[in-house]
Amino acid sequence: MTAHSLAGKASQNDKRQRILAAAETVFAENGFFYAKVSQIAKQAGVADGTIYLYFKSKDDLLISLFEVRMKQVCTAMNETIAKDKECADKLRSFIRTHLALVNDHPSLAEVLTVELRQSSKFMKEHSNPQFAEYLKILATIIADGQSKGEFDPTVPAPLAARGIFGMVDELALAWLLGEEQKFDIVRAAEWVGSLILKGLTKTKPTS
Amino acid sequence: MTAHSLAGKASQNDKRQRILAAAETVFAENGFFYAKVSQIAKQAGVADGTIYLYFKSKDDLLISLFEVRMKQVCTAMNETIAKDKECADKLRSFIRTHLALVNDHPSLAEVLTVELRQSSKFMKEHSNPQFAEYLKILATIIADGQSKGEFDPTVPAPLAARGIFGMVDELALAWLLGEEQKFDIVRAAEWVGSLILKGLTKTKPTS
Repeated sequence: MTAHSLAGKASQNDKRQRILAAAETVFAENGFFYAKVSQIAKQAGVADGTIYLYFKSKDDLLISLFEVRMKQVCTAMNETIAKDKECADKLRSFIRTHLALVNDHPSLAEVLTVELRQSSKFMKEHSNPQFAEYLKILATIIADGQSKGEFDPTVPAPLAARGIFGMVDELALAWLLGEEQKFDIVRAAEWVGSLILKGLTKTKPTS
Repeated sequence: MTAHSLAGKASQNDKRQRILAAAETVFAENGFFYAKVSQIAKQAGVADGTIYLYFKSKDDLLISLFEVRMKQVCTAMNETIAKDKECADKLRSFIRTHLALVNDHPSLAEVLTVELRQSSKFMKEHSNPQFAEYLKILATIIADGQSKGEFDPTVPAPLAARGIFGMVDELALAWLLGEEQKFDIVRAAEWVGSLILKGLTKTKPTS
């Protein structure tokens, strides 16, 4: 996974990227509601007013951060699953990559998973094109598997995708909010992958 | 306890319940952040100050509402699954009952699913004993099925329970926030139930 390069990819000489990276850190540390634009400015090493040259508001910062990072996640995910031939392998890669990203980038994951849920503006008013794109990658894997006869065609692919996303997202949330004795999220990805694949596969499961 | 004090307690309880019911409606209609205590008082038919005789704050109202309703949900769920003999049937009942509840009580589901996610105080600071209880009901079904040899023992039961909860919760969220052409959530419960059961079952699935 190119997950490692996701946050670091933010080029240091690009002020917009620097502000977004700072927002990611400050949102994760303080929570979206308690985060102050002045803290983000300080973290980014720019004047408070500079933030408003690039972003309309704190809400706009969160929405932009989500779109930028989810676009990077979608690109990385597409590159990863392109290496797999079988739909089953692609599905397993998807789940593995999602949870590896959470494991490797807890601050980013905290913002995407915890903070976004808490922004009512975001959840209800924003159309989240990159989130839709992310779900589409997963739905396409399932639909392909169904049309090739690998997966059971009973469940509509977009609905299965939403459900599988919910499963990995909830495990990410449990892991991120769990304070002591965190479970092994990378191992959990293998369990979830096996369970889902067995559930979807048409033939007798190999496990 | 005298008859008089019992009656007094009943009417106090009645008022508390009326305020909680009003809060449920107002939170669902306006969202937690935009809801005003005065609106809740009006809806409940009590004076604004009366609310504070029963609840410390708007946050306390949301937390109390969650605990009271989740306790009712847990009781109903326990009664439902007690009717099933096989763990597979219990698991299917759990998923079916959860999504039927969303279908039948969208206002309550909206508060429990959407609004709670948006209360950072709630998510990070409150221990949610009734939510833990709800997850435990599900984890117990899975653990029982594993010890009886019905279910694959590979995935730890609490982790499987959290994942399955995430799947049904995400479908509930998609259904609640979907504005047009809502999918059939009752039918979705059957799909999810089949997928999960097939994924968990040790023997060859009958598909």
